[in-house]
Amino acid sequence: MFKDRFFLPTKIISGNGCVSENYSMLSALGRKAIVVTGKNSARINGSLTDIEAALKQNSIQYVIFDRVEANPDIKNIREASNTAREFGADFIIGCGGGSPLDAAKAAALLTNNLVDDENIFSFREWTNVLPVIAIPTTAGTGSEVTQYSVVTNRAKDTKQSISSELIFPRIAFLDARYTESLSAETTNNTAVDALSHAVEGYISKKSTHTSSIFALESMKILGVTLPAIASGKIDFSLREKLLYASMLGGAVIAQTGTTALHSMGYSLTYFKNIDHGRANGILMSEYLRYISLSAPAIVSDILKALGLSGIDSLERLIGALIRKNENHTVEEIKKYSSIAMKAANIANTPVPVSESDIENIFRKSL
Amino acid sequence: MFKDRFFLPTKIISGNGCVSENYSMLSALGRKAIVVTGKNSARINGSLTDIEAALKQNSIQYVIFDRVEANPDIKNIREASNTAREFGADFIIGCGGGSPLDAAKAAALLTNNLVDDENIFSFREWTNVLPVIAIPTTAGTGSEVTQYSVVTNRAKDTKQSISSELIFPRIAFLDARYTESLSAETTNNTAVDALSHAVEGYISKKSTHTSSIFALESMKILGVTLPAIASGKIDFSLREKLLYASMLGGAVIAQTGTTALHSMGYSLTYFKNIDHGRANGILMSEYLRYISLSAPAIVSDILKALGLSGIDSLERLIGALIRKNENHTVEEIKKYSSIAMKAANIANTPVPVSESDIENIFRKSL
Repeated sequence: MFKDRFFLPTKIISGNGCVSENYSMLSALGRKAIVVTGKNSARINGSLTDIEAALKQNSIQYVIFDRVEANPDIKNIREASNTAREFGADFIIGCGGGSPLDAAKAAALLTNNLVDDENIFSFREWTNVLPVIAIPTTAGTGSEVTQYSVVTNRAKDTKQSISSELIFPRIAFLDARYTESLSAETTNNTAVDALSHAVEGYISKKSTHTSSIFALESMKILGVTLPAIASGKIDFSLREKLLYASMLGGAVIAQTGTTALHSMGYSLTYFKNIDHGRANGILMSEYLRYISLSAPAIVSDILKALGLSGIDSLERLIGALIRKNENHTVEEIKKYSSIAMKAANIANTPVPVSESDIENIFRKSL
Repeated sequence: MFKDRFFLPTKIISGNGCVSENYSMLSALGRKAIVVTGKNSARINGSLTDIEAALKQNSIQYVIFDRVEANPDIKNIREASNTAREFGADFIIGCGGGSPLDAAKAAALLTNNLVDDENIFSFREWTNVLPVIAIPTTAGTGSEVTQYSVVTNRAKDTKQSISSELIFPRIAFLDARYTESLSAETTNNTAVDALSHAVEGYISKKSTHTSSIFALESMKILGVTLPAIASGKIDFSLREKLLYASMLGGAVIAQTGTTALHSMGYSLTYFKNIDHGRANGILMSEYLRYISLSAPAIVSDILKALGLSGIDSLERLIGALIRKNENHTVEEIKKYSSIAMKAANIANTPVPVSESDIENIFRKSL
């Protein structure tokens, strides 16, 4: 029987100069905006200049909250939502990598809803949620087209997802110019994040016919762009393709969720401060080796879409993109595994996975 | 430079039994509903039974407007919107082929907006538009995922589109069971309509990378399903694929609009009462021959996706699917051509097309 679901309500606009060209679209969202971003990058890459110009052209009052931290925790997000509430913002513009976008989305929920820290991840009755505009400045998160906000939950020593259809951004503006000033390291780490979304979405138990069309297209583009950036060749056209493939990856996980790989990666980020994309990359090859034991066809689809001959080739490609130089004790790996087993997304993994399977994947990868 | 746009805010739910399984989703839309449908088919194919059960399970009051005509005109649509207004409907469920779905969408606009007949097609200030649920019972229209409502405009002797993002259905339920009672003729005519959407969306000047992914996937599925139904082989699994390919075609034209082929087909429907899908099918091969003179690559992409060796094979396939037994005088063809040149969608045609080009395509096709 054919079953399919697809929901992607974000208006997606891609192209060099798309914020300026479409500035008038902001007027429908209100008279007062808050721009949620990180400390520096939006100023360096030109996105903040374009956003401020667009807001001024619409005579929209605005305040800039530029204190989003990497992997923001609830406290950091409340600073943003408090600022939005005090300013009386009608809508939020999130601008940056995954952290500012996810902070903007969580702040959109919290601005007009009083919810205790412990209930944020399970709350379902959000009202008066501020509309969000998302402007990614890395090519990896895909957050510009998802209903998720990943937030560091210090009470549980991990990163956790808030999921609500109300925080699908209204509009995502994708301008690859904003990714041009990224370091090679960030470019590569985030590109591997995009890859993990397409790969995990493709294998997810929740994958559908439509999500898989997007996943395969994303992997097809990444199969060309990842080897190019691994060899240090990158130009504007390649950056546009990467940004588009990353958006497709986000559109995929919006349908399918992520799987055990993300559950595992969160600990590497939380405890070792390893960038999210790099964390997933470090674990991806061993994870796919594990999956291929029970579901070889699905893994060979992935390799074919990427234009790779086997998991060994994938491992070499990822090795050329990201570094792996942290040490992890046996006790740490046990802790990571125990936390991963409690993650919600582990249920989407297409084959059964026990805590000792997880430990094995960690051990072989690290 | 890479430019792309994608907007498809409809929640798409496919599968046998999807209305009943997801009945609780209706509760968010209001307490009073109007079901807009045709005279008989929704009663025969089981869709109305499922809809009424779902409404009752939510204790939603409802009224059934079952007087949508084929190719509804403004007068017919006002009967539906007047009924909705008098009943105080909070939302509209459109159920049927393209005519009921388009009538439901136009009625959703007109219920709370007083707009003269002559301004309906250009009006832009719609407010309080009723949310629409779309339940297609043919596999062809794609209207369940578009912002268009095609309405017969007697003042201009043609069919014309109303376009508003406000009438993208909130939810589209796709259950192929509702298409099982269709006659072979309607199955084939509507399948050719789906084909025309994928083909025209692929060649449209407004095509984007993302719309083309959907168009190619739709054509890939139609390349398998159309020959099967042409040879009289049809089962439930094939019907599910057809319905899905038809939805993809709708998702495509939501991005790209249609082209000169639709502009031309409208006259065959208006003056000769030729079913919409059949009208496009009669003209499609000559239309693509004309396009291929200036843009051969785009036509060969289409043939490749369909698994066909040339336009001649496409012509034979369409010939096996639909009949062509009307006569048209030279004067009629001149009239059709003159009207087609005034259609808005002709501007999306990827190569320049003059009135005499249009006449030639008509003459060779008819």
